[in-house]
Amino acid sequence: MTREHRYTHGLEVLERIDGEAGRRVVDTLADTSPELGHQIVAWAFGDMYARPELAPRERQLVTLGILTALGGCEIELDVHINAALNVGLSPMEISEALLHSAVYCGMPRAINATLVAKKVFGERGLLPLTNVS
Amino acid sequence: MTREHRYTHGLEVLERIDGEAGRRVVDTLADTSPELGHQIVAWAFGDMYARPELAPRERQLVTLGILTALGGCEIELDVHINAALNVGLSPMEISEALLHSAVYCGMPRAINATLVAKKVFGERGLLPLTNVS
Amino acid sequence: MTREHRYTHGLEVLERIDGEAGRRVVDTLADTSPELGHQIVAWAFGDMYARPELAPRERQLVTLGILTALGGCEIELDVHINAALNVGLSPMEISEALLHSAVYCGMPRAINATLVAKKVFGERGLLPLTNVS
Amino acid sequence: MTREHRYTHGLEVLERIDGEAGRRVVDTLADTSPELGHQIVAWAFGDMYARPELAPRERQLVTLGILTALGGCEIELDVHINAALNVGLSPMEISEALLHSAVYCGMPRAINATLVAKKVFGERGLLPLTNVS
Amino acid sequence: MTREHRYTHGLEVLERIDGEAGRRVVDTLADTSPELGHQIVAWAFGDMYARPELAPRERQLVTLGILTALGGCEIELDVHINAALNVGLSPMEISEALLHSAVYCGMPRAINATLVAKKVFGERGLLPLTNVS
Amino acid sequence: MTREHRYTHGLEVLERIDGEAGRRVVDTLADTSPELGHQIVAWAFGDMYARPELAPRERQLVTLGILTALGGCEIELDVHINAALNVGLSPMEISEALLHSAVYCGMPRAINATLVAKKVFGERGLLPLTNVS
Repeated sequence: MTREHRYTHGLEVLERIDGEAGRRVVDTLADTSPELGHQIVAWAFGDMYARPELAPRERQLVTLGILTALGGCEIELDVHINAALNVGLSPMEISEALLHSAVYCGMPRAINATLVAKKVFGERGLLPLTNVS
Repeated sequence: MTREHRYTHGLEVLERIDGEAGRRVVDTLADTSPELGHQIVAWAFGDMYARPELAPRERQLVTLGILTALGGCEIELDVHINAALNVGLSPMEISEALLHSAVYCGMPRAINATLVAKKVFGERGLLPLTNVS
Repeated sequence: MTREHRYTHGLEVLERIDGEAGRRVVDTLADTSPELGHQIVAWAFGDMYARPELAPRERQLVTLGILTALGGCEIELDVHINAALNVGLSPMEISEALLHSAVYCGMPRAINATLVAKKVFGERGLLPLTNVS
Repeated sequence: MTREHRYTHGLEVLERIDGEAGRRVVDTLADTSPELGHQIVAWAFGDMYARPELAPRERQLVTLGILTALGGCEIELDVHINAALNVGLSPMEISEALLHSAVYCGMPRAINATLVAKKVFGERGLLPLTNVS
Repeated sequence: MTREHRYTHGLEVLERIDGEAGRRVVDTLADTSPELGHQIVAWAFGDMYARPELAPRERQLVTLGILTALGGCEIELDVHINAALNVGLSPMEISEALLHSAVYCGMPRAINATLVAKKVFGERGLLPLTNVS
Repeated sequence: MTREHRYTHGLEVLERIDGEAGRRVVDTLADTSPELGHQIVAWAFGDMYARPELAPRERQLVTLGILTALGGCEIELDVHINAALNVGLSPMEISEALLHSAVYCGMPRAINATLVAKKVFGERGLLPLTNVS
């Protein structure tokens, strides 16, 4: 498999999961670190994300947990909350995952991630959430 | 004690400590994660903050240390530097607590937190600090 | 609902999810911070974990992501990798979730979490994993 | 003020606050990084900790918050929980400060710090805590 | 060496390494925490950075690794990517150091740091990078 | 280039940089997450570390900065302090890089990393460091 093939395969995965938003990050990196863009596409999506051992929906739950815990990842949370919706998590499930994170990484990280969810949900016309307790 | 009572009690604590700023965070969360708002009020303030084992002034010193160390918590630092002033810490004491944090979590975290303090102190007409060495 | 009822309810959830390991952490805290033990049981498990909006299996995926990203949580990862097995995640799925985390929080955090999984899987006679690619 | 004077002054502060434990850390570093030992003594204690703008008791509350939030600082928490006792915080206040941290940096960090407190309190014959709610 | 001498010496180092940007941070802190500004100048630059045991170019590589890993340090990364250019690292080397960091602290931190590099390189007319693979 | 070729190439890089210690980590992961071992070898070393844009010595300076800042990476610091020696950094330079990190991520992280360096230097008969100021 050539470097080219790995990239093409990864790009197909990236676009299926992240949609336009993931592609935009890679394009933004092109003049400063094309290799970082390549590794996001070919390795992170093509080699890692595409593995069948976990469903995309489950990968997104792990990813939301990580990005919330790390902090300072608002840009990436934006992409990955969009991705979570794309792969079938409901707004309520995403909101609940971020609420759950408060137990393990504290209220500030949970609040910050939920504010990103508010932005993404708003952009996609999903607010207010209904049926949330 | 009902869920309602716990909320009402927590809200009274929240408003005494954080003033308008804490309430605004909870309101902002209402359409995306009302339960996160509930837990901030009922649990974080009503159950935890209200405990008499530490004075509010001492809780704020611990909180400032945590938020500075975590990084990426500018929104929460804004609320909690206001809260620190509300519960009786002087601007000079807050500034000193953030300076002290440089020893334990490094200059960048201390600088970032001090820039939030500069914003809050400025909004409250407290700059320049006097009697600082 | 009294403080007592919230504790009793939480303990039932804790024991169903974490088994003996979670109870052991609470018991260890009893002479130093009984209130921390109470909050883990009554709040973290009784109020938060028990919510039906996410299945336990999904909560554990978020939790594994958070604990891996935080680092320095080997004790808690031990409890929560056991919990992940208890609620129906297979060793292969857990291993894959930790592999996935390498993309988002780097190799060292993924390695450290996988070393805890190795310990837990070994104790439960689940090694070597089969059918892993 | 010579480098020598700054060191001598810092050592006096270090020994008053941290007792034997702080000195032991500096001694351990002597064959690998004597300059790190020097900076801990002359800068962290002599220049920073000794400033009168916050009382030692208040500095320790900030420090406990930071070390709990950082994670992976069990060695330093051991020294600083001892220091907290040395400067007049009661075991109950220390335990409460660590409980309070659960709100802002999550249960795992609070548990880990409380386990260090349990060790220190045990070594100093302070367990079980009495009058804790 | 007086406090004054240490400051003057540090300021000379700061201006050689960080140029105008470092001085601007110190000036911004002047009304809120002049002592933090003093410590950045006199200690961080005068005492620590000026030590001859590592070349400035090598110190900047360590610093870029730390700031990337910490996250939430965009302000400081801006100053230190400028500093890295000032002490002789090429844009390509800086970009590669941030790419390298993806292995150890994950893609999101590497992306965030690279976006700061894109801003700094753009301001200095260095984009697009040439000869990057 | 097949998966097999990428692995073989990466293993050659890993062994040149990390020596026996890196191989041992991969072997330890074999029964729990062989794919994580594969990615460390084929991707982290074969694809990323092997790139010529930075010298190994410079990559290790970035890596030491990251691992020190992350905290809780004692296992990986052990491997990478050995690697730093293998690629030509002197004990004094390593010690200085960790001292430098105190400015940016605080004393506790710098102390913890230096304690790992003390262990590695001791095992390789390099203590006490001479010519350190």
